[in-house]
Amino acid sequence: MKLITLTTDFGVGDWFVGTMKGVIASLAPKVAVVDLTHGVSPGDIRAGAFALAAAYAYFPAGTIHVAVVDPGVGSRRGALAVKTARYLFVGPDNGVLSWAMRGEEVIAVHALENERFFLDTLSRTFHGRDVFAPVAAHLSRGVAIRRLGRPRADWVRLPWAEPRKTRQGLAGEILYVDRFGNAITNIDAARVGSLAGPSGRLTVWRKGKPLCAVAGFYGAVSPGKPVGIVGSSGFLEVAVNGGSAAERLRLRIGDLLEVRRQAAGMGE
Amino acid sequence: MKLITLTTDFGVGDWFVGTMKGVIASLAPKVAVVDLTHGVSPGDIRAGAFALAAAYAYFPAGTIHVAVVDPGVGSRRGALAVKTARYLFVGPDNGVLSWAMRGEEVIAVHALENERFFLDTLSRTFHGRDVFAPVAAHLSRGVAIRRLGRPRADWVRLPWAEPRKTRQGLAGEILYVDRFGNAITNIDAARVGSLAGPSGRLTVWRKGKPLCAVAGFYGAVSPGKPVGIVGSSGFLEVAVNGGSAAERLRLRIGDLLEVRRQAAGMGE
Amino acid sequence: MKLITLTTDFGVGDWFVGTMKGVIASLAPKVAVVDLTHGVSPGDIRAGAFALAAAYAYFPAGTIHVAVVDPGVGSRRGALAVKTARYLFVGPDNGVLSWAMRGEEVIAVHALENERFFLDTLSRTFHGRDVFAPVAAHLSRGVAIRRLGRPRADWVRLPWAEPRKTRQGLAGEILYVDRFGNAITNIDAARVGSLAGPSGRLTVWRKGKPLCAVAGFYGAVSPGKPVGIVGSSGFLEVAVNGGSAAERLRLRIGDLLEVRRQAAGMGE
Repeated sequence: MKLITLTTDFGVGDWFVGTMKGVIASLAPKVAVVDLTHGVSPGDIRAGAFALAAAYAYFPAGTIHVAVVDPGVGSRRGALAVKTARYLFVGPDNGVLSWAMRGEEVIAVHALENERFFLDTLSRTFHGRDVFAPVAAHLSRGVAIRRLGRPRADWVRLPWAEPRKTRQGLAGEILYVDRFGNAITNIDAARVGSLAGPSGRLTVWRKGKPLCAVAGFYGAVSPGKPVGIVGSSGFLEVAVNGGSAAERLRLRIGDLLEVRRQAAGMGE
Repeated sequence: MKLITLTTDFGVGDWFVGTMKGVIASLAPKVAVVDLTHGVSPGDIRAGAFALAAAYAYFPAGTIHVAVVDPGVGSRRGALAVKTARYLFVGPDNGVLSWAMRGEEVIAVHALENERFFLDTLSRTFHGRDVFAPVAAHLSRGVAIRRLGRPRADWVRLPWAEPRKTRQGLAGEILYVDRFGNAITNIDAARVGSLAGPSGRLTVWRKGKPLCAVAGFYGAVSPGKPVGIVGSSGFLEVAVNGGSAAERLRLRIGDLLEVRRQAAGMGE
Repeated sequence: MKLITLTTDFGVGDWFVGTMKGVIASLAPKVAVVDLTHGVSPGDIRAGAFALAAAYAYFPAGTIHVAVVDPGVGSRRGALAVKTARYLFVGPDNGVLSWAMRGEEVIAVHALENERFFLDTLSRTFHGRDVFAPVAAHLSRGVAIRRLGRPRADWVRLPWAEPRKTRQGLAGEILYVDRFGNAITNIDAARVGSLAGPSGRLTVWRKGKPLCAVAGFYGAVSPGKPVGIVGSSGFLEVAVNGGSAAERLRLRIGDLLEVRRQAAGMGE
């Protein structure tokens, strides 16, 4: 059975997501649709890109990932289908797909131009329903990506800030704050591991002051205390055991953090 | 594969919707259930009716649409199954189905009376689980609508305010505010098109003052600016590009708006 | 078709639930996944236990119920699979499964130890994705529970406060507040029925003062008025017709309430 995932900023309070599923069910009755999330903040392309990149690889090969965070809907912004070694991706050409593609071998990229694969009643405000859902449904039924439109040599990529080396460690920034208030950075697990070395204890710093130690899991510190963790999305995050790090430490997207090898004698 | 859609005010924070799906899976294991939305404000029959009307027609023929916004549950309010040319509808007889039926050819309406098709343990507080879910499941398995109860010649219809002609255009009211803060009116696309004519530029007015121009899509105005759009539900709505029109312009359900042909010389 | 239900505190704003579904779809493509709820307050094991206990029995025999409210993830807390006469349950050994098990005949309990049934990339922060989802998927494909790990003679049970008899009735406490603001107690339907007797009118008291009468459904009192109801989860709850009892009466989890046989002459 084919799978289509949906990542949007439509929320679940209105009928938008349900309508996309109706369109898909009408065109491809046997496909299963899975909500990746619809809770992306309205118009926040980066958050949508991060969510998609964090989750898409846990789906079986052949899954079609649809991401619609689309503040430019109806304007001249393009729309894409991307075929990679393992998946298909569908969405507006505004960068929302681009962070997922960093981890994929891209095989073909086509513009969505052939209106034969859109709904007949094409609106200029809801391409989730009128373009992306029907295109994904047609792809799930075996329509070849090249039939959707011309090949695209280039597409919009969101900048991805790599962490940079500092005198004592690595500096990065907060990219995402999740439901639990965990502040997820762009400092990836591999770099954290290299920095730590075999013996290594690490500390997270902010504005030149130590914020918390890095440990293996939330409960490694007392309730209410902050801790750095290499989280499930593969990046260093700052959490508070049993609480919200974003609230208690006033962490926000874009804030700069540094991780340093812990100086001798700076134990807990 | 048969489809059942659910439109409720149950939210997704408790177990209510999950329980309905358990009941359906127990009685009709092969049916697929799609959430239209569960985010209707508690007890807001009009909002439920609007959501259902905006979305139901995007589902394949034969879909069973269940709508449960039911503040009168347990009282003597009736309950209905409606067969139209394309769909079945199930819900309380309080008007929540009635705006969808405006677009459908109604073939049969029956009361839900035959307790054989309810759960054995019939509560007086959760007919979503005990009446509407099992009835929908039985219908999906081919139970004829007439077996559910007596035919009903009449049922509760929510009033639908048609927009009225004014000297310079059309006056209507706000019926729904969506997640993005777009304020959706009762002024439909056909009327907007007739008013505009071939050349036509239109303007939305509030309380005798111009509010914004009507354009084709959100990005037709600068970020932060208001714009009138014929939205995806087929009605004129007021939006703010990249923001919430409801918040910035203090628009609420029930507010009166007028759309007028734009006077010469009133360009942007 | 096999069913897996999910009860978590992950919310639907991030990609966590979607990722669990991807893992399940990868391992068990034919299973259907139903969201029981993901709206449990972060880390609130009691609320998760209550939601699961209120809903699990409405699913067909053979359903696999996964509950992940897991503030101790990554620590030494255990993880369980439980086989009962009708269902399988999977989750951390922190009590989240224990209230559902009060109503079930437990046949076997095994620790989750065999890493062959986990994801290869086992994190210490997201066992929903890395342990519980893959274990449930393997169980749905027929893996025997004994292969998951050693049998467990004991497990964590959340205390369940039984209501106690008072001179004039029964005293209990509020266990859960739902979306509608209904405050659900631990006083069960059977006890309420015995107390009422054949003729019986009952009243809910708080701190020695009468709060409201017990009636059959919300609309039995005027809009805005409080009423005691034996609700759909089988417990006495306090509601306000058309409003939130929790807000209007300032009811909170843990508050003590008493239900008494109504004194003669205390009619409405």
